[in-house]
Amino acid sequence: MIDLRSDTVTKPTDEMRRAMYAAEVGDDVYQEDPTVNELEETAAEILGKEKALFVTSGTQGNQIAVLTHCRPGQELLLEEESHIFYYESGAVAALAGVQTRTIAGKKGAMDPNDVLNAIRTEDIHYPETGLICLENTHNRAGGAVIPVENMEAVYNTAKANNVPVHLDGARLFNAAAAAGVDVKEFAKYTDTVQICLSKGLGAPIGSIIAGSSDFIKTARKWRKRLGGGMRQAGIIAAPGLIALTKMKDRLGEDQWNARILAEGIESIPGMKLARQPETNIVVADVTDLNITSEEFVKKLRSEGVISGTFGPTLVRFVTHYDVSEDQIQKAIEAIAKVAKD
Amino acid sequence: MIDLRSDTVTKPTDEMRRAMYAAEVGDDVYQEDPTVNELEETAAEILGKEKALFVTSGTQGNQIAVLTHCRPGQELLLEEESHIFYYESGAVAALAGVQTRTIAGKKGAMDPNDVLNAIRTEDIHYPETGLICLENTHNRAGGAVIPVENMEAVYNTAKANNVPVHLDGARLFNAAAAAGVDVKEFAKYTDTVQICLSKGLGAPIGSIIAGSSDFIKTARKWRKRLGGGMRQAGIIAAPGLIALTKMKDRLGEDQWNARILAEGIESIPGMKLARQPETNIVVADVTDLNITSEEFVKKLRSEGVISGTFGPTLVRFVTHYDVSEDQIQKAIEAIAKVAKD
Amino acid sequence: MIDLRSDTVTKPTDEMRRAMYAAEVGDDVYQEDPTVNELEETAAEILGKEKALFVTSGTQGNQIAVLTHCRPGQELLLEEESHIFYYESGAVAALAGVQTRTIAGKKGAMDPNDVLNAIRTEDIHYPETGLICLENTHNRAGGAVIPVENMEAVYNTAKANNVPVHLDGARLFNAAAAAGVDVKEFAKYTDTVQICLSKGLGAPIGSIIAGSSDFIKTARKWRKRLGGGMRQAGIIAAPGLIALTKMKDRLGEDQWNARILAEGIESIPGMKLARQPETNIVVADVTDLNITSEEFVKKLRSEGVISGTFGPTLVRFVTHYDVSEDQIQKAIEAIAKVAKD
Amino acid sequence: MIDLRSDTVTKPTDEMRRAMYAAEVGDDVYQEDPTVNELEETAAEILGKEKALFVTSGTQGNQIAVLTHCRPGQELLLEEESHIFYYESGAVAALAGVQTRTIAGKKGAMDPNDVLNAIRTEDIHYPETGLICLENTHNRAGGAVIPVENMEAVYNTAKANNVPVHLDGARLFNAAAAAGVDVKEFAKYTDTVQICLSKGLGAPIGSIIAGSSDFIKTARKWRKRLGGGMRQAGIIAAPGLIALTKMKDRLGEDQWNARILAEGIESIPGMKLARQPETNIVVADVTDLNITSEEFVKKLRSEGVISGTFGPTLVRFVTHYDVSEDQIQKAIEAIAKVAKD
Repeated sequence: MIDLRSDTVTKPTDEMRRAMYAAEVGDDVYQEDPTVNELEETAAEILGKEKALFVTSGTQGNQIAVLTHCRPGQELLLEEESHIFYYESGAVAALAGVQTRTIAGKKGAMDPNDVLNAIRTEDIHYPETGLICLENTHNRAGGAVIPVENMEAVYNTAKANNVPVHLDGARLFNAAAAAGVDVKEFAKYTDTVQICLSKGLGAPIGSIIAGSSDFIKTARKWRKRLGGGMRQAGIIAAPGLIALTKMKDRLGEDQWNARILAEGIESIPGMKLARQPETNIVVADVTDLNITSEEFVKKLRSEGVISGTFGPTLVRFVTHYDVSEDQIQKAIEAIAKVAKD
Repeated sequence: MIDLRSDTVTKPTDEMRRAMYAAEVGDDVYQEDPTVNELEETAAEILGKEKALFVTSGTQGNQIAVLTHCRPGQELLLEEESHIFYYESGAVAALAGVQTRTIAGKKGAMDPNDVLNAIRTEDIHYPETGLICLENTHNRAGGAVIPVENMEAVYNTAKANNVPVHLDGARLFNAAAAAGVDVKEFAKYTDTVQICLSKGLGAPIGSIIAGSSDFIKTARKWRKRLGGGMRQAGIIAAPGLIALTKMKDRLGEDQWNARILAEGIESIPGMKLARQPETNIVVADVTDLNITSEEFVKKLRSEGVISGTFGPTLVRFVTHYDVSEDQIQKAIEAIAKVAKD
Repeated sequence: MIDLRSDTVTKPTDEMRRAMYAAEVGDDVYQEDPTVNELEETAAEILGKEKALFVTSGTQGNQIAVLTHCRPGQELLLEEESHIFYYESGAVAALAGVQTRTIAGKKGAMDPNDVLNAIRTEDIHYPETGLICLENTHNRAGGAVIPVENMEAVYNTAKANNVPVHLDGARLFNAAAAAGVDVKEFAKYTDTVQICLSKGLGAPIGSIIAGSSDFIKTARKWRKRLGGGMRQAGIIAAPGLIALTKMKDRLGEDQWNARILAEGIESIPGMKLARQPETNIVVADVTDLNITSEEFVKKLRSEGVISGTFGPTLVRFVTHYDVSEDQIQKAIEAIAKVAKD
Repeated sequence: MIDLRSDTVTKPTDEMRRAMYAAEVGDDVYQEDPTVNELEETAAEILGKEKALFVTSGTQGNQIAVLTHCRPGQELLLEEESHIFYYESGAVAALAGVQTRTIAGKKGAMDPNDVLNAIRTEDIHYPETGLICLENTHNRAGGAVIPVENMEAVYNTAKANNVPVHLDGARLFNAAAAAGVDVKEFAKYTDTVQICLSKGLGAPIGSIIAGSSDFIKTARKWRKRLGGGMRQAGIIAAPGLIALTKMKDRLGEDQWNARILAEGIESIPGMKLARQPETNIVVADVTDLNITSEEFVKKLRSEGVISGTFGPTLVRFVTHYDVSEDQIQKAIEAIAKVAKD
């Protein structure tokens, strides 16, 4: 099977497995796991923040950020198809008691003026605007890169109104690779940032949140409440370190493959792209085939390619480490076959 | 001063004051206040529901409805400028742990197809859609009436997906007066409904929520948790009964006055209406005067008329029992004076 | 019927009813109700605090205090049979996300050493101690008065550990009357205090919370979220003012009647007191009658006296404004009759 | 260093490391990780439950259980020094909105009559009793084993009142080893149970919760909200499987070592036991040395032995896989040296 559902499906490399085997560990609840400590220090440095914290997933990282920044009764501004709003099971309300106020973006980017207008003034009828969340690359916008300039403008608007900014950077390294800039350039316009080690970077488990020392201290306690305090976590921090330091340089390959896949899809009669891919996500529109995305995904699976529905007529493909250029070619052939039937 | 800020400013009539003076009371926490019991029975009957509960405000009624219908981690669908989302200080997330998903309506009415598309399917990444809230008349849509047909269509969509429907009917009697139908016709397409006694109906304090017996039983406990369990509440239920049974027939006057005010405003150079009033709310646009709504409201106040900002360039006027047709004429003159300066 | 269930059953006096009839009112959400404003200023002065806020019930006042003082994940220290823990439907956890840590008191008073030991040190496994709540008089301790000295010691312990103190003073005026001191003497050893106007003081509805200006500002917003923001609330503030300024001087009568009732009960074969009454609450123990408190309460009701269960073998009687000394004598006769059967 | 702080400090064995290296993995959010699936099936079978779920920590397992069993506004009955109440940072209130009602146990076991008395009857003033939590072995009772008979009695009381029972069995295998019975015998008297793989069983990370199919389905969603949904979790499930199937048989060694350590401590002048150890936890009382536990722990550390404070005068030692009988002897010598100074 060629699995293009998500870059979360990547399996650890042999180097990662060897690192796990050999990892020096300690009890991370006591902050005594040397491998976790090294990972956190490395991540903080890469992101240009004071401190970092290892968490079990991107969702956990985002939730801890919201819990740490906000109080119940506050409002969170975020893009209307952002992961935190769309794919985290309503957790920001359930756990942090924070109301979501969504803004329709363009290719995932919110207009700074829309953000400004959505920031609440002081009034007894209004929740206070407690946090603005960005997402880069933006998953449901098809892996679109939020430009540094947009992030800067939103950040300045936020700061002028004393509102903190959190970045869901689950795929921030893909954005950096596509934009040809360092992740620090993006992270600069945030108070806190979350990155995933387990997507394109290929680690089996885990994400990082980074921010000020004070933020991380409180975040660590919220991690404990959510049950994210682990013991010999060095075991999974070890492949995380490899992901963070060695794997980011290969994300260009995934973009290359996404480009090839997109062109292949465009050339298939009845198929079209929902939008041009900017990173490793390709979204195809099957409307003209007169079948639902669900049917398409099912048929394609029987041809040996796994994809995912992304709306009633949209199908998502994500390129990643475990899929070679050859397999992309085979995937295009399978897609063509399904489209023809 | 001519106070057109809101119909919440209405003061109790002499008949209401006499009713308070004479009210038979008991301890309502023990459900032994005869006046409260009568009010609740009357309200249930008028709304066509099994049971009703007296609460201290529209916000409390809406919050109790959400707390009773939903569990934390669920999602609430509602119009993007609805009162529950816009004006209740983020309480649905803070108290009920429920995520708000907003839909842009037309004149306050959500398209049933948009509602259908926003109902979540079963997926571990999604909150369950726990409740749909409607608002009729719709305050921020300028007192627009949501047509019975729209409510019916949304309700049928909801029922087909096993989602309950709550109606924020703070001004439902205004809708009924404008549409020329009984409130039951609207309430029919809801599981639960909240109405305010303290707006156009003129009671000093209080709202009602109505629904099934089971719903009201659980709602009563949530009311207690919110501190809404009162003692000799018959004191305020007595004017509520008058509001409910006698005052609804005079809401036509408020509409008449709103009509006059709207026409007056339209005739003033530099002033225009944001939309034609359907009930007792008039929203004017001061863009062409080159001043902010805040400045306009301030100037108008110094001319003896109180209005409210409704956005950077919008000003809201609400007609009600305490403002006569004569006063409306004076208000128009004052507005003309401010517009001229 | 002679209703000794609770002092909450008191009905408003004719003076109160006249005050309601004549009350000058405004819209209290805009803080423009002159009667509410007067009540809040008067209450703040009486309690020796900067500001006060009118709320609809003692439960609402307590809940707002906890919501304002605490953040989710903190711990609340309070006596194991205190009203906030025992009788508020679990609201502190449901609304404020605060864990209750209870301490067994003596006659309702917690030992300052127990409080000190229960205050959490800094540790990632521990909730932070966010608030200490006292109750005076203490309802389930049979209306026991917490001595000023105990409150002072607990307060000093709290302050030494940077923990705020809230007093549930639903019956604080009863404590003051019994101790022969001004309520300020108790309130001095608190950051915030809640008093009920609707118990022994006889107002139909409402309580007060008092504290610093900052506290009240945030509390006002939480009141709005709970739906406690009312409109022409002067209607019920008016009798509240009478309760606060004129009724407190008559609480000695209730104590006198409680004393008579207690002595009467002690003289009945098979009946005994659970403890000597200190204020207006009398708790009898029916163990020796070999019936449950539930049966006893039922039988006594059929003799024209309403009491309440207070545990499997305990029955509570509360004296108040609506029960005269004569009626107390009749109640004793009825109790004797039931005890004899 | 001889680390006796906790059995959480155990490092993975070489067999476990090899299992990680070789683990077959998939994406567990899609339930496609074969190693996780095998671990969950094995755990369910061992515990005699329909289904099991792999979580990142004991705290996460307990919190998910409370979130799944309860609704906000309910009350949780548990022993006053239980882990969930004492050591989980107030999470049950913060996340699940559930009020804690604690009962003082004897050696960690609650009297079934106390449980019965603490279950709330139906009353608008009361939270509903939503769950009873047990802990076996009981950490703060010094690793005491809750007898099967006690669990059965509490369970029957719970069932008679329609209240579910959750067992925090972080060290359930230690209880089983000490009592000489199968873990199923304990699990039988629960609705759900949590066990830790990372304590005495030696796995680096992870716990299990087990219960009915319906329970696990909802629990899986709460795990996602808490961020516990992991990707290639087979990496850590692999050592978990070894822990679960091979390591439980060696827990007798830890008890043996605890016994030796306890006898050693008893023989040191000035030292005494807080109680006789039943499993792998030894609690010493340093009162007679006239130093605080904090000072004692510090001094002992400089002698090469790590222990933990367990109260102002109590010191806890936990035996585990990484500490041999020889090292226990050395630890006794170090303790004797500190006691003598």
